[in-house]
Amino acid sequence: MAGKNSFRNHSERKLLVLVDMDQVLCDFEMRLLQEFQSRHPNDPFIPLEERRTFYARDQYAKIRADLADNIRDIYNSEGFFRDLPEIPGACDAMKELKEMEGVDVFICSSPLTSYEFCLKEKFQWIEEHLGQEWLDKIILTKDKTVANGHVLIDDRPNIKGAIRKPIWEHVVFTACHNVHSDIRGKRRLDNWTDGSWRDLILDLQMRV
Amino acid sequence: MAGKNSFRNHSERKLLVLVDMDQVLCDFEMRLLQEFQSRHPNDPFIPLEERRTFYARDQYAKIRADLADNIRDIYNSEGFFRDLPEIPGACDAMKELKEMEGVDVFICSSPLTSYEFCLKEKFQWIEEHLGQEWLDKIILTKDKTVANGHVLIDDRPNIKGAIRKPIWEHVVFTACHNVHSDIRGKRRLDNWTDGSWRDLILDLQMRV
Repeated sequence: MAGKNSFRNHSERKLLVLVDMDQVLCDFEMRLLQEFQSRHPNDPFIPLEERRTFYARDQYAKIRADLADNIRDIYNSEGFFRDLPEIPGACDAMKELKEMEGVDVFICSSPLTSYEFCLKEKFQWIEEHLGQEWLDKIILTKDKTVANGHVLIDDRPNIKGAIRKPIWEHVVFTACHNVHSDIRGKRRLDNWTDGSWRDLILDLQMRV
Repeated sequence: MAGKNSFRNHSERKLLVLVDMDQVLCDFEMRLLQEFQSRHPNDPFIPLEERRTFYARDQYAKIRADLADNIRDIYNSEGFFRDLPEIPGACDAMKELKEMEGVDVFICSSPLTSYEFCLKEKFQWIEEHLGQEWLDKIILTKDKTVANGHVLIDDRPNIKGAIRKPIWEHVVFTACHNVHSDIRGKRRLDNWTDGSWRDLILDLQMRV
């Protein structure tokens, strides 16, 4: 985490906010579980409150190896990413963020290695839920350390990549799988509905 | 252009090289012209040595408005991006770059607003021409100023976006449309075949 107290490495005077998609804007876990229960009604499942790993398939694999394959088949299916429900309040918050003075916002998402559907469907989701002008605000990258911004709001507790000390501060968006995780002193954002995201942005803006 | 003489804003000790796709790795202009001539054999065309604008459709529009639409229809077609020929030597250079000590390389490409085919086909091109492991090295973004690296090798003479002073130095990859452009003191890379890219990288590495 770079620049917890200041953004010395940044020449930018606007606050550049990077926001992850899955589990921050889109409810990946809920849809995955619903689809799993629908496709495999007789198999054991992991309720959301018992999800612990970043990748659902890792936790399902510990129950039975074939369940991990079933999980992967679901998110590799056509329509999965396009039809993800919204995390409550996410799109209204994004639109408000975009209008805030001195703020610029980008969506920073990591596509699946199986890219048959997810690339296009991520764009479709953004177009449908936020509007066509947001297509210019999408950064798709497996390695988020090479994205440039003051803050990255992302549910993955540990984000690693080519750059050892990313330029952004990582704020962990609370999700079922990370609520018990050790986030090593990072800040959390728990939701888009209680207004705390505005306090976070105002605090970050004071350091730009 | 940030850090022409030093990379003071970067905490990274490896040289991070960002490389554009169209007209740097993939020969967009040649294929566009060939397809235009094939589809519209009786219409006037612009030979590559007379191309002057970054967007081909802008130059075709000056000849006749409908030609610009024909140009757009071609690059919006299924298969256009997937089947682009390679710029000579590009893939060998990328593979060699990736193996160089103290260098990390990413592909930084801007997708079309009409994303129906181009997102997936850019990934297909990389997978086919460079290999599956390179899928982890792709950054798709309309705004390249939010990509983080020491250098961006890109044929577009002027790259603008949310960040006024991008962290990278922009090296202009010479293309038919920019060969006569004023590149305002930026350096050029003319091709991937005469070995000059190695000199560029060695020079940049001395400043990391």
